[in-house]
Amino acid sequence: MKRIGILGGGQLGRMLLQAAANYPVETYVLENDPQCPAAHLCHHFTCGSINDFETVYQFGKGLDALTIEIESVNVEALEKLEAEGVKIYPKPSALRTIKNKILQKQFYKEQQVRTAEFIIVDNLQAIKDNAHFLPAVNKIAQGGYDGRGVQVMRDVAAIEKGFDAPGILEKMVTIDKEIAQIVAINEKGEIVLYPAVDMVFDPHLNLLDFQISPADIPEKTLWKVEALSLAVVKGLKSPGIFAVELFIDKAGEVYVNETAPRVHNSGHHSIEGNYSSQFDMLWRIMLGYPLGNADEILPAAIVNILGEEGHSGPAYYDGLDQVLTMEHVFVHIYGKKDTKPGRKMGHITILSSNRHDLVHKAHRIRQSLKVITKKDV
Amino acid sequence: MKRIGILGGGQLGRMLLQAAANYPVETYVLENDPQCPAAHLCHHFTCGSINDFETVYQFGKGLDALTIEIESVNVEALEKLEAEGVKIYPKPSALRTIKNKILQKQFYKEQQVRTAEFIIVDNLQAIKDNAHFLPAVNKIAQGGYDGRGVQVMRDVAAIEKGFDAPGILEKMVTIDKEIAQIVAINEKGEIVLYPAVDMVFDPHLNLLDFQISPADIPEKTLWKVEALSLAVVKGLKSPGIFAVELFIDKAGEVYVNETAPRVHNSGHHSIEGNYSSQFDMLWRIMLGYPLGNADEILPAAIVNILGEEGHSGPAYYDGLDQVLTMEHVFVHIYGKKDTKPGRKMGHITILSSNRHDLVHKAHRIRQSLKVITKKDV
Repeated sequence: MKRIGILGGGQLGRMLLQAAANYPVETYVLENDPQCPAAHLCHHFTCGSINDFETVYQFGKGLDALTIEIESVNVEALEKLEAEGVKIYPKPSALRTIKNKILQKQFYKEQQVRTAEFIIVDNLQAIKDNAHFLPAVNKIAQGGYDGRGVQVMRDVAAIEKGFDAPGILEKMVTIDKEIAQIVAINEKGEIVLYPAVDMVFDPHLNLLDFQISPADIPEKTLWKVEALSLAVVKGLKSPGIFAVELFIDKAGEVYVNETAPRVHNSGHHSIEGNYSSQFDMLWRIMLGYPLGNADEILPAAIVNILGEEGHSGPAYYDGLDQVLTMEHVFVHIYGKKDTKPGRKMGHITILSSNRHDLVHKAHRIRQSLKVITKKDV
Repeated sequence: MKRIGILGGGQLGRMLLQAAANYPVETYVLENDPQCPAAHLCHHFTCGSINDFETVYQFGKGLDALTIEIESVNVEALEKLEAEGVKIYPKPSALRTIKNKILQKQFYKEQQVRTAEFIIVDNLQAIKDNAHFLPAVNKIAQGGYDGRGVQVMRDVAAIEKGFDAPGILEKMVTIDKEIAQIVAINEKGEIVLYPAVDMVFDPHLNLLDFQISPADIPEKTLWKVEALSLAVVKGLKSPGIFAVELFIDKAGEVYVNETAPRVHNSGHHSIEGNYSSQFDMLWRIMLGYPLGNADEILPAAIVNILGEEGHSGPAYYDGLDQVLTMEHVFVHIYGKKDTKPGRKMGHITILSSNRHDLVHKAHRIRQSLKVITKKDV
């Protein structure tokens, strides 16, 4: 059996390991929280920092392959492991490009992939010096995740909230729609595209609110989405699963926003909604099996279950029974002991051939299910 | 989080634990093989015998609930645990009835559930004394599993192969079809029936060969299947998942063959083919959640992957790549290190709205995939 490790033990690791149990593979997880969602679902759990060179190197030494569930890992260790023959998904070179927002934007430019105009800023002073570039979005170069490290600047007054660190200032695009495109690519360069997904974001937390697959966009727009996503993934020259996030403006122009070089929240519906889920697909790639079929079984929506504002502590899922009585609904609770405001605690998938049914149920689930803290849980 | 244990760590435990990761639950497994398919997928693994009173009692003490993945467990320990407040799925009383083939047949008679005629035999001599009852099937009262403990006796010459132990001699029914009916029942007595399944058996190993859901039977026959299955499950007076196996004879009469008080091979297609799989459903029951929806998403078939004759040792899945290229096919390899002839090593699920497509692919998979041993694996 191949021995494959995952850096990070959150919900992505958890769902990867659920899928791994369909194949002959020995699994390893590195994460500094032994209570993390993935810790109990692998053959071998190592408690340690995914950011520490020596820890990552020792963890990966002797494994056949490694993957990540978050970008903020020690890339130097991955490069050393790769040089010693461990397969890394994605390749450290692709990870380097993506985990730094400046390099990522420059990469899009080099690949002639349409992306929002940007300038590089070294610190807060540089943002002030470029106030004429507003309205814009300031993104920190390194360490942003799940809505952190992003600051919207509609006017000069907002500059003070900017990051006093290297990053980019990106022209604000008048967004009509946000789209995610999951792409799978194997060692041979064979590619499979999942149906593109419509994403609807929460304006406050900047976290995915709900999403529908397939996206409801004109065919020609879809072609642009697919063409740009393919250009990004081919340019990165790495096998793996990639989630390309794109904007469509009012004129129907498509822009690449950013890329995640891993399984992604925008692909969770694929567990029930597609023949080969994004998690199944990544195992196929890492185990050297043929690529799976990304076709949809039925159209799907997902709703993220986030920790309620004002609640921090042991998680209680208020309204879960109500959601569990809904037809054609699949519950995924990530098993995190504690909730906090905005924390991703689970997601709910809805399958239906009727788009209105998907939207209606997504809203009902949002209203019904709250992650709160409660005494005696 | 509720703490729930499973007695046994084979593929049923493995698939139960894959499903458990969708819910907030702390999982425990007891099994005497630390390399078993479920060992690495639970929070707490205990190495020990599920047949030993003290081991089972100590394992279950303090847990909220327990379930089984095989009938041959220590029932006395489960009774003591039940008396002390641990919920057991199925109830030990139901397990006692089912795990002894004599009691099981008597139960069907009491419930006025049609079942093949039978007589009780104490030993081989008793079979000889009842040679007039042939053609018949001799089933050992206790300890039979997966085709073991069953001996077909078409004529007197076959009597010598009978069991010299308490059991039953069951009149042979001219079987037209074999059907499985999975039934879910919760604490409140609410019941959900899965679509009945057509089972096709291998005449040599007496192990499920392939199955198709839903069964292709006339509506009135289906009503009989459902009515008999309901009578069995209601008579057992226990929450849980039950798989009722039935025969249909040439005249369209329906007979209950036997019942498994647990998740069952005949329900594996429900992982992809039904909204709430049998594994999901059992967690809903044990966690006190509402019952799920057993409706089919698409018609499904499964093919069991059995160890090839003449091969014992480290398992190699010859032809797996070919199966993985087939459309609408889901692979489940149980991760057992060693294969042996007839051992259940995995199963493959096929989804299709076209019944011919299901049958065609099932046969292609049978021909393509062989579990063998190979040097240097």
